[in-house]
Amino acid sequence: MKDYQNPAWCQGMKLRINYNNMMKSALLPDGFTREELTRLPLSAALAAMKAKRPALRWMDLPHNQEEIVQQIEKTAAWVREEAEAFVVLGIGGSALGPIAVHQALRHLNYNDLPKEKRGGPKLYVLDNVDPERMAALLDVIDIKKTVFNVITKSGSTSETMSQLLIAVDLLKKAVGEDISRHLIATTDKEKGNLIKIARQEHLTTFIVPDGVGGRFSELCPVGLVAAAVCGIDIRALLAGAAYMDELTQNEDPMSNPACVIGALQKVAMDRGMNIHVMMPYADSLKYISDWYAQLWAESLGKKFGTDGSILHAGQTPVKALGVTDQHSQVQLYTEGPFDKVVTFLTVDKYRTVTPIPEGYPDIPDVHFLSGHTHNELIAAEQAATAYALTKSGHVNYAITLPEVNPFTIGELLYLFEVATAFAGELLNIDAFDQPGVEEGKKATYALLGKPGFDEKRAELNARPAEDEAYIL
Amino acid sequence: MKDYQNPAWCQGMKLRINYNNMMKSALLPDGFTREELTRLPLSAALAAMKAKRPALRWMDLPHNQEEIVQQIEKTAAWVREEAEAFVVLGIGGSALGPIAVHQALRHLNYNDLPKEKRGGPKLYVLDNVDPERMAALLDVIDIKKTVFNVITKSGSTSETMSQLLIAVDLLKKAVGEDISRHLIATTDKEKGNLIKIARQEHLTTFIVPDGVGGRFSELCPVGLVAAAVCGIDIRALLAGAAYMDELTQNEDPMSNPACVIGALQKVAMDRGMNIHVMMPYADSLKYISDWYAQLWAESLGKKFGTDGSILHAGQTPVKALGVTDQHSQVQLYTEGPFDKVVTFLTVDKYRTVTPIPEGYPDIPDVHFLSGHTHNELIAAEQAATAYALTKSGHVNYAITLPEVNPFTIGELLYLFEVATAFAGELLNIDAFDQPGVEEGKKATYALLGKPGFDEKRAELNARPAEDEAYIL
Repeated sequence: MKDYQNPAWCQGMKLRINYNNMMKSALLPDGFTREELTRLPLSAALAAMKAKRPALRWMDLPHNQEEIVQQIEKTAAWVREEAEAFVVLGIGGSALGPIAVHQALRHLNYNDLPKEKRGGPKLYVLDNVDPERMAALLDVIDIKKTVFNVITKSGSTSETMSQLLIAVDLLKKAVGEDISRHLIATTDKEKGNLIKIARQEHLTTFIVPDGVGGRFSELCPVGLVAAAVCGIDIRALLAGAAYMDELTQNEDPMSNPACVIGALQKVAMDRGMNIHVMMPYADSLKYISDWYAQLWAESLGKKFGTDGSILHAGQTPVKALGVTDQHSQVQLYTEGPFDKVVTFLTVDKYRTVTPIPEGYPDIPDVHFLSGHTHNELIAAEQAATAYALTKSGHVNYAITLPEVNPFTIGELLYLFEVATAFAGELLNIDAFDQPGVEEGKKATYALLGKPGFDEKRAELNARPAEDEAYIL
Repeated sequence: MKDYQNPAWCQGMKLRINYNNMMKSALLPDGFTREELTRLPLSAALAAMKAKRPALRWMDLPHNQEEIVQQIEKTAAWVREEAEAFVVLGIGGSALGPIAVHQALRHLNYNDLPKEKRGGPKLYVLDNVDPERMAALLDVIDIKKTVFNVITKSGSTSETMSQLLIAVDLLKKAVGEDISRHLIATTDKEKGNLIKIARQEHLTTFIVPDGVGGRFSELCPVGLVAAAVCGIDIRALLAGAAYMDELTQNEDPMSNPACVIGALQKVAMDRGMNIHVMMPYADSLKYISDWYAQLWAESLGKKFGTDGSILHAGQTPVKALGVTDQHSQVQLYTEGPFDKVVTFLTVDKYRTVTPIPEGYPDIPDVHFLSGHTHNELIAAEQAATAYALTKSGHVNYAITLPEVNPFTIGELLYLFEVATAFAGELLNIDAFDQPGVEEGKKATYALLGKPGFDEKRAELNARPAEDEAYIL
């Protein structure tokens, strides 16, 4: 029996939320009141989410992918056998999800490990079109021993398709016309450009379901393929998400973790806190902040409300890391404006114990550390930072993972996805579109001379000339 | 003759600033006016900076380190000979500077390259005390072929000193009592704990000068040692900083690049823009954002003004990257609140050209990319994003590097240091202290049972019990 099939084990792995440091107290006189939270239309928002669920197909990913998981495991098996490097060509959710999960659940120096210890091919995620990036990749891989995974639902993402053209050209020159053992496609079932190419080239193909937008896609093949290739237990990941799905269907708002998070953030936004810091106290969780930043920013940063009113809604996510950013940002966090909520991610039990040994007994300011562990030190620093923030009037709360494992990561991702959707309800915006990226896309096409964008090109050319006075 | 000894070459490498997209125009009706900028006390602030200069010793680092550079080059020579891995033990400026410069000026997959192509030992910067981090390092290095550089001015940074205890213990077990070929110390000349240890262990030692705080330290041995070890031309780096020193002494405020940046940010802050996004359009410049985040946040995020008034000043830096974050943040940036300034870092000429080859002529939506380059694509996307931001009323400006090389990186670091100091003048705060980090430090010591912190421990114990209602 797997751990996650044991309900007692799952219960022991439940994520905890402690938001005492958001709430009014002797230590925090300007903290939130329970009433500020409960007067929000929380039950109505929960009901609205429930009614929307059939359309929000990302919500069912933990439950309906048994066949897909089997196909992924089969694919991962031959990739692990044949590939020395696995290269994801993707951007946005297609990159951020894989990176976050890999960082959490693989060795922190994974690519540096010798093959026999690494437990999978080297992983590269090409999430940019800096010309130096592709060149740098080609310097370190043997194309004949590389498998690429191109990920784009629409097949119209310029960056990813440009990388695909480069990869296909190199592969065909290296291995011949049949590149089907070197390229996996993850895309829409029938719409768009990539599915056409996948059929043409006879590629192993995985489908991004409708109703699963990029920033909600980590628990579908977009994330699961890379995870399985690198040896991560994707069934446990999905089991954790399924477990959180139960918890986030709780109809008592203040017992529902996603509801509580959404409510806290809504009250914060109403109080003018336009910044949301995500600060894990674990290197393994560092890129959860990056993944979360897309989820939170792109879902909630909306010009229009669902009623058509102009809102310019949104709260800016800030990526932080403890203890590292204590030495970079905490001065601002404790002394600066009261414009931010800090969310800590903490870990009860890390996967190693690192003792601090004896040394320099004649230097007490150093020697006091001996006999402690990094485990104690990082926990003390997180508690101390939370205290310092609260004492200085700056609200914060903590989400605690008992351990970092695939189950708890599945819980965490799903929790944040539901909390974001819930916040969208409270903000009366559509959390699932991203119209604001269209202008930049069109302008890019126009600048590149793509046919069909003459109007945009004319608009760009009609801009007033720049004022030289504003150029140094 | 070196390039940077040729004035015409230097002139061609001058960083440019274009802030048209901050300023009122037909495209940006709510943009800044020239008057908003010029009515700030810019000349007075420049004069104040000039008067303070003798105390701000980081300002003279480009000019007064000839002997130090020679020593660093000697040290780098034996480290490059003997070490397979170079490990920086440091946090804050001691980590962020080395990481930023390394990312900018070394191969993007530096550690992955075979030794003969890499041009230096592998580099690891241990900027956290996650217990898994040290374990992960020890899995990939051979301690007998590793040189550590422990960097802390005071020698009281708990994280760094705990790492030092671990490293010294491992080294003595591996190579014996004499660890002087495996550990370099960068610290204060006489104060603190590390100089004592350095003398005791006969370590190669470099000095962090007084008047050079952590976030202003990249151009002193804190940054220069790691750079030289990894094969970076530190003389060119310093020459670029020296060149920018000239430019930023211009007494005409609107011709002085640091002054212009400080003024723009001050007007932005006065208009309620409490967020400053740093968005390079180059993977090589990615960690400039992280380095800048400490400089900007820690310098300007201050409770008190220099006159003792309570300000809670500061502007929150946000780390971003183009094109990557177009697919993560730009929805928020274009449609969300008008609470941010976006600074683009652009590059005229990348160090590689990456063509997009022919392919799939029957799919025009893909084929239009063929014949273009990633160089064109990234430039088009940056211009398009700037346009989309401006059109949607969100202010932005661009700093352009003609190329990314040690000279231009030196310019960029120095420019930001002076701009930050100048912004501090305009905000009437002390940009050079960080009192807000003390509370967390003391609470950490108390939690770890360090002698002398009984009062703090009592204070922590006297906290009201947590309310279980706020724990899920």
